[in-house]
Amino acid sequence: MPEIPKERLEKYLNLQREFKEERYINLNPIQRGGVLTDAAREALLEFGDGYSTCDWCPPKTPRLDAIKRPPIGQFMQDLAEFLGMDVARVVTRCREAQFIAFATLGEPGDYVVVDGLAHYSAYVAAELARLKVKEVPHSGHPEFKLDLDAYAEKIEEVKRETGKLPAAVLLTHVDYHYGNLNDAAVVGKICKKYGVPFLLNSAYTAGVMPIDGKKLGADILVSSGHKSWAASAPTGILALKEELIDRVLARSKIVGDWSKHEVGVKEYALLGCTVMGGPLISLMASFPHVVDRVEHWGEEVEKARYLIEQLERIEGTRQLGIKPKQHTLTHVESEGLYKASQAHKRRGFFLYDELKRRGIVGIQAGLTKHFKLNTYGLTKAKVEQVAKAFLEIAKDQGLTIK
Amino acid sequence: MPEIPKERLEKYLNLQREFKEERYINLNPIQRGGVLTDAAREALLEFGDGYSTCDWCPPKTPRLDAIKRPPIGQFMQDLAEFLGMDVARVVTRCREAQFIAFATLGEPGDYVVVDGLAHYSAYVAAELARLKVKEVPHSGHPEFKLDLDAYAEKIEEVKRETGKLPAAVLLTHVDYHYGNLNDAAVVGKICKKYGVPFLLNSAYTAGVMPIDGKKLGADILVSSGHKSWAASAPTGILALKEELIDRVLARSKIVGDWSKHEVGVKEYALLGCTVMGGPLISLMASFPHVVDRVEHWGEEVEKARYLIEQLERIEGTRQLGIKPKQHTLTHVESEGLYKASQAHKRRGFFLYDELKRRGIVGIQAGLTKHFKLNTYGLTKAKVEQVAKAFLEIAKDQGLTIK
Repeated sequence: MPEIPKERLEKYLNLQREFKEERYINLNPIQRGGVLTDAAREALLEFGDGYSTCDWCPPKTPRLDAIKRPPIGQFMQDLAEFLGMDVARVVTRCREAQFIAFATLGEPGDYVVVDGLAHYSAYVAAELARLKVKEVPHSGHPEFKLDLDAYAEKIEEVKRETGKLPAAVLLTHVDYHYGNLNDAAVVGKICKKYGVPFLLNSAYTAGVMPIDGKKLGADILVSSGHKSWAASAPTGILALKEELIDRVLARSKIVGDWSKHEVGVKEYALLGCTVMGGPLISLMASFPHVVDRVEHWGEEVEKARYLIEQLERIEGTRQLGIKPKQHTLTHVESEGLYKASQAHKRRGFFLYDELKRRGIVGIQAGLTKHFKLNTYGLTKAKVEQVAKAFLEIAKDQGLTIK
Repeated sequence: MPEIPKERLEKYLNLQREFKEERYINLNPIQRGGVLTDAAREALLEFGDGYSTCDWCPPKTPRLDAIKRPPIGQFMQDLAEFLGMDVARVVTRCREAQFIAFATLGEPGDYVVVDGLAHYSAYVAAELARLKVKEVPHSGHPEFKLDLDAYAEKIEEVKRETGKLPAAVLLTHVDYHYGNLNDAAVVGKICKKYGVPFLLNSAYTAGVMPIDGKKLGADILVSSGHKSWAASAPTGILALKEELIDRVLARSKIVGDWSKHEVGVKEYALLGCTVMGGPLISLMASFPHVVDRVEHWGEEVEKARYLIEQLERIEGTRQLGIKPKQHTLTHVESEGLYKASQAHKRRGFFLYDELKRRGIVGIQAGLTKHFKLNTYGLTKAKVEQVAKAFLEIAKDQGLTIK
């Protein structure tokens, strides 16, 4: 039996997070929508023990979505309705939701058409499902605007090359590079015309802004609980139109050759049950808040625009991506701060240091020329504090402020 | 935008768990090893916010196992060492670990040889990886003892039928039906002889009893944090021998056809990052306790044997599976309690009612003839209380007590 020396275990005692919400203003682009509500915090602890969701698992249909206490089954129905979809499942991650869709809709060697700004998880999900990707281009610097009409061309291209339609089409509703919001309905229409399932990755939109899958023509809508639904990681959302249930949520058909054992009640691509503990319950506990907060999306965008306006006062600084911003995830290009970094003894790290000294974190250490931030859920006062900090830092470095 | 009426959201306020550890003696067979430590409870809350593990994600190697604050990378190394393996990853579930192994070691249509008592997740994992299963038989009622030598025959059978070896061999170290402990080293030797990767499913063993993967000849060892490591769901463990790292943890090779985008740092079958929040941290926080508790496995088995001895005093009642018990998960067959249920107005539910009235839960409601329970981690006093309750209930029903 291998032995681990006691001293090596000391580092696991009293695990603390430095960048707690109450201590810092955290601008980390992937973290703002995943800050828990108080209700989620309590629920997480209440259902902290492993398999704590399974106390009332019905023996004849042992599946998460059949559990009534806590109301997991009802939650999945409410979740589907909230997204304008017909059925929903909570899976372990948005990327797993993408993989499940790809693996069940495609055969090895098939194509998926994705946008050229898709998250890396779309690529690895396709890879694991043994599919190939064909990308829809964007306009490049500085707007990085996707050519949504090109989805039709790309579908045609796949058809010409392989003799069959792509297994699915994926659009990243808001991308993680520039925070550009795409008009998903355009792609929805193209997909409908070709009869190709349309997967909308709403990891950065559903849960923070209003989404109606039906209106957007989404056949599959995936999202991330820990990114945008005030839930703990790992939690993903897989929502479907009725027409795809039989394929994407197909029941297991495998039979043991000797035992004749079958597990026909389980949805095989989900591997049966998914999130059987705290994170699922945190998602449920935050749901009433999320239903409410999406109505205030306009105010969130206003705060982001305010910060950009202030940052753009700094010499050589501008927001990349489509203007005006329609999302809180922002990509900043700053020749000015970069110039300052070249003269600074801490080089690119000076910006991180100076922000942290002012209680602001979440911008990647070392970056000045291109960096990303997200203001979602910060009060106006905190956003003003961030703006003030940047202006001060720039001024201290001798940069011109407009 | 779809609207959810306010009343429908009320059920998500104040989500409570009835069967909390401090309130009931819970014998649920899947839950005993997943009760959190106090340290895990604190850590879970500390890292409750989504993506809270990612504050210090290194930009050049953005992967969970590269994170040093909190010490996630070091944890994965300690975890591998503790299991007698070379490398470990925390994935979302034990079943995902099985799937990752199957998907990376097999090609669609390949076989995996599994034991006839394997968990359903082994079957759906094979199904999702597009593999077929061939089962090793067991002896049936009452011992359900696996014929471990038959692994050699089954490997030969696959070779004859398909012209190639199975993609992998799976043994369930302790099965979930009868809690039989298998001598994994026997299968390890057979696999070594044939050169077939040996996957040991230690969901019910690693984390509660001492395991040395090297000694057992395991090439892949999978386990479940929420089942046996005092961690929150969902958490799985995937541990490997060095020889398999390149295959099972292969880096992504997919390239965007237009963007030339690559994500070669990501382990594609894991879909990149896995558990980026609280449950992983709960697993880490409980680790010092787990390292200690496996040394006390003998006492746990003693308590289980004590309860069985007491239950077998009830008319027509016996433990199924191999005797004497070598694990705390126990399958009880009771003709006596079944007989009593036939005469009871609540039929099979009387047993559940009577136990619950005495503060004992976790045995499936409605069952009397065959039911499962697990005493892991209960104090001797609580186990005695369970024994006393059963004997009282049986006596009240007019059954003979030896």
